[in-house]
Amino acid sequence: MDYSTNDSKSTSKNKVVAVVGGGLVGALNACYFAKRGFQVEVFESREDIREAKIVKGRSINLALSHRGRQALKQVGMEDTIVSKGIPMHSRMIHSLNGTQSPIPYGKKGQYILSVDRANLNKELLSAAETYSTTKLNFAHKLLNWSTETGAMTFLRADGAKEEIQADLIVGCDGAFSAIRKQFLRQSRFNFSQTYIPHGYLELTMPPINGEFAMKPNYLHIWPRNTFMMIALPNLDKTFTCTLFMPFDEFENVTTGDQVIEFFQKYFPDTIPLIGADALKRDYFRLPAQAMVSVKCSPYHLSDKCVLMGDAAHAVVPFYGQGMNAGFEDCLVFNEIMDQLNEDFSAVLPEYTRVRVPDDHAIADLAMYNYVEMRSHVNSKWFLFRKYVDNTLHMIMPRTVIPLYTMVTFTRIRYHEAVKRWHWQDKVRKGELILTRGTQRFSSCNQKRRCSSLSDKEMLIWWLAMMICRG
Amino acid sequence: MDYSTNDSKSTSKNKVVAVVGGGLVGALNACYFAKRGFQVEVFESREDIREAKIVKGRSINLALSHRGRQALKQVGMEDTIVSKGIPMHSRMIHSLNGTQSPIPYGKKGQYILSVDRANLNKELLSAAETYSTTKLNFAHKLLNWSTETGAMTFLRADGAKEEIQADLIVGCDGAFSAIRKQFLRQSRFNFSQTYIPHGYLELTMPPINGEFAMKPNYLHIWPRNTFMMIALPNLDKTFTCTLFMPFDEFENVTTGDQVIEFFQKYFPDTIPLIGADALKRDYFRLPAQAMVSVKCSPYHLSDKCVLMGDAAHAVVPFYGQGMNAGFEDCLVFNEIMDQLNEDFSAVLPEYTRVRVPDDHAIADLAMYNYVEMRSHVNSKWFLFRKYVDNTLHMIMPRTVIPLYTMVTFTRIRYHEAVKRWHWQDKVRKGELILTRGTQRFSSCNQKRRCSSLSDKEMLIWWLAMMICRG
Repeated sequence: MDYSTNDSKSTSKNKVVAVVGGGLVGALNACYFAKRGFQVEVFESREDIREAKIVKGRSINLALSHRGRQALKQVGMEDTIVSKGIPMHSRMIHSLNGTQSPIPYGKKGQYILSVDRANLNKELLSAAETYSTTKLNFAHKLLNWSTETGAMTFLRADGAKEEIQADLIVGCDGAFSAIRKQFLRQSRFNFSQTYIPHGYLELTMPPINGEFAMKPNYLHIWPRNTFMMIALPNLDKTFTCTLFMPFDEFENVTTGDQVIEFFQKYFPDTIPLIGADALKRDYFRLPAQAMVSVKCSPYHLSDKCVLMGDAAHAVVPFYGQGMNAGFEDCLVFNEIMDQLNEDFSAVLPEYTRVRVPDDHAIADLAMYNYVEMRSHVNSKWFLFRKYVDNTLHMIMPRTVIPLYTMVTFTRIRYHEAVKRWHWQDKVRKGELILTRGTQRFSSCNQKRRCSSLSDKEMLIWWLAMMICRG
Repeated sequence: MDYSTNDSKSTSKNKVVAVVGGGLVGALNACYFAKRGFQVEVFESREDIREAKIVKGRSINLALSHRGRQALKQVGMEDTIVSKGIPMHSRMIHSLNGTQSPIPYGKKGQYILSVDRANLNKELLSAAETYSTTKLNFAHKLLNWSTETGAMTFLRADGAKEEIQADLIVGCDGAFSAIRKQFLRQSRFNFSQTYIPHGYLELTMPPINGEFAMKPNYLHIWPRNTFMMIALPNLDKTFTCTLFMPFDEFENVTTGDQVIEFFQKYFPDTIPLIGADALKRDYFRLPAQAMVSVKCSPYHLSDKCVLMGDAAHAVVPFYGQGMNAGFEDCLVFNEIMDQLNEDFSAVLPEYTRVRVPDDHAIADLAMYNYVEMRSHVNSKWFLFRKYVDNTLHMIMPRTVIPLYTMVTFTRIRYHEAVKRWHWQDKVRKGELILTRGTQRFSSCNQKRRCSSLSDKEMLIWWLAMMICRG
């Protein structure tokens, strides 16, 4: 769709959109608004990462999937980004004894992509800059802004203050959003920030003889119940390993020897791959980082301001959807801009109405997977369920879609995906009630076919219910 | 227990405790700390309500129950307060056709008390002032404070700034606590504020011929599903009626005639009692007020600051426990001060550990009752359950205690009360599974006693389970 022919473009040309935050979602949003013809001003508190030597904080690779790709596609960026990603078709589960078992993410041909956060950010900033109406302002720290007039004051690196008046302010300034602080002063703004007891720590697994130290096209997982490690491949043939562990337990490991002892006990196969010396050193390079889940509502303030990305919904990283949800925010907003002809006073409330339930759903799912990934992935029951779900999906691709597939490989709204999933679960529980109810009465003189259904009969009953609904 | 003989008193004498907020919990806390011998400075942003003519905002009467009374008792205030309260032994349910049905709160002799917020606050402030070591500072607005040094800056009514250094800062400054803002800047502080879709509005029902217009020793309830009205008696023989309704619906009533029409439809029995003219006038006196539920954790910052009352846990008003929970905070803190010999560095983390789960539990329960009070109170199923619970409680007073009784008439920790209640519910659901499981198989050729248990058999089974556990 070519927006240059859009009716509203004549009005948008005179309007200033201030995007606060030049991270992933801010940079992508700049492209979206610029493409529509708005005057876009991006304000980022840090220096331009394309010039900076070291980028501090945040994980260095991310899993890009369908929603994120669709959002990139709309501004012509999908191919560029995908070409620099590494496909991961399956999880690769590392058991304690060193055996590795793959669990596919979806059907053949479906995969998620390991992409480099810094590179993706750089590409998006450069893409935003190709629009003549876009100006990127780095080292601009937000001091204050007015919810009534849209007037904003920034502190520049040179100590000077800069004022700007915006028609729309788009807060993409992350989990600790400065823009959001004004929302907290309004009545009836719902907000929550929840830290999980786990912290994370990143380690690098170098190449061996110029090649990946493990199979590259997998997201490697070492599930160990209360904690876990994962590893994602990078273009330079390293892996970034991320150890997730309760802060309490991080506190118990304070010396290099304790690190080795800990890895020997739980991740013995990784010691030769990371290298004992590197492990002892890198483990203490940074303290364990906290993870927060942020939810809020509404996302907008009158017709002046809207929150997107982590500023609106920071999620814990266990569903690989943080960036994808943030990118989909831009896409959904864009769709509503089309529907409501760029009228901010209609678009903003509609965006809140549509998007809040979906973002809340993915925040909850990520929290759910926080438990599932490190524990259930271990169990045979989990593997069996994945197997059943995938098989049923193969037989009835429209009726039974595994949750992971809905979230990762479709644009089914997150909250719809959860609803369908709960429905499937309810059906499963219905089955349980039948089984348990009847077993309790096995002392009665019933015929065998009544006292408990065979597994085959259960499957038939369950399939019948699925089909009836489908 | 006489604290004047307490070992630690010699140290507490030199320590300054700054209580921020001179509302109910702040004033009570001042008594507690003063009684221990601390130098207590209370800072309240408003004027002294004992001198002010009109007290704005907040509901004017509250339900005092066991926890609150125990907390008052400890500082010798129970009798004074109780003597000015009006006992309410039962709910009085007003149906649409005007019939009234009482539902007792507990056993004979158990009641909650309708108390006047302003009077209670005044009494507590005066009680705090009887301690020579206590200073009350009104019209002092907190500007800033240091989490490291405990230094605080206040803005006085005369425009001057005042500095004070405290050994301990106790934040009792309500749901929108200024003290809590510093907590939000710390890492790993969990926080949520949730507004419910309902607002509330207060109306006064005057005496008729010098007497209460309705039976005084009841909490009157008009449950109407999506909304409801309640009325509590006051010492001056008025009732304060509070209408709870979704904000959307408040917006639909904009003229005096619409008010009458609305009351005619839903609360016809109250129109002659409130008076049509008063109703038309008072309904629009103030806009509908919002209600917020606040949860956070931890409650303390190092050994310097602790949050109590609404600052730590604002709850929606539907369990009548907001003030009681806040008062119990003071009591629990006091108990831990005894246990840990007034060592703030030990007392504060212990207070967080002990109190957070209980306050979160009552916040959740209040939210649960938000639904129950306005809808289920209507239904026969609810009445039946109350009846069963109360009967079982009479037979087995230690094993089966109705949730409402545990919350209102005991000091069983809130989270323990919820646990016991969930257990009872689980037992009930077990019963349901049995019933439903067997009914599904009624097509099979079973004997009648197998296909569905009689009500009597259910009751026996359920009682057996209860007794086994007890």
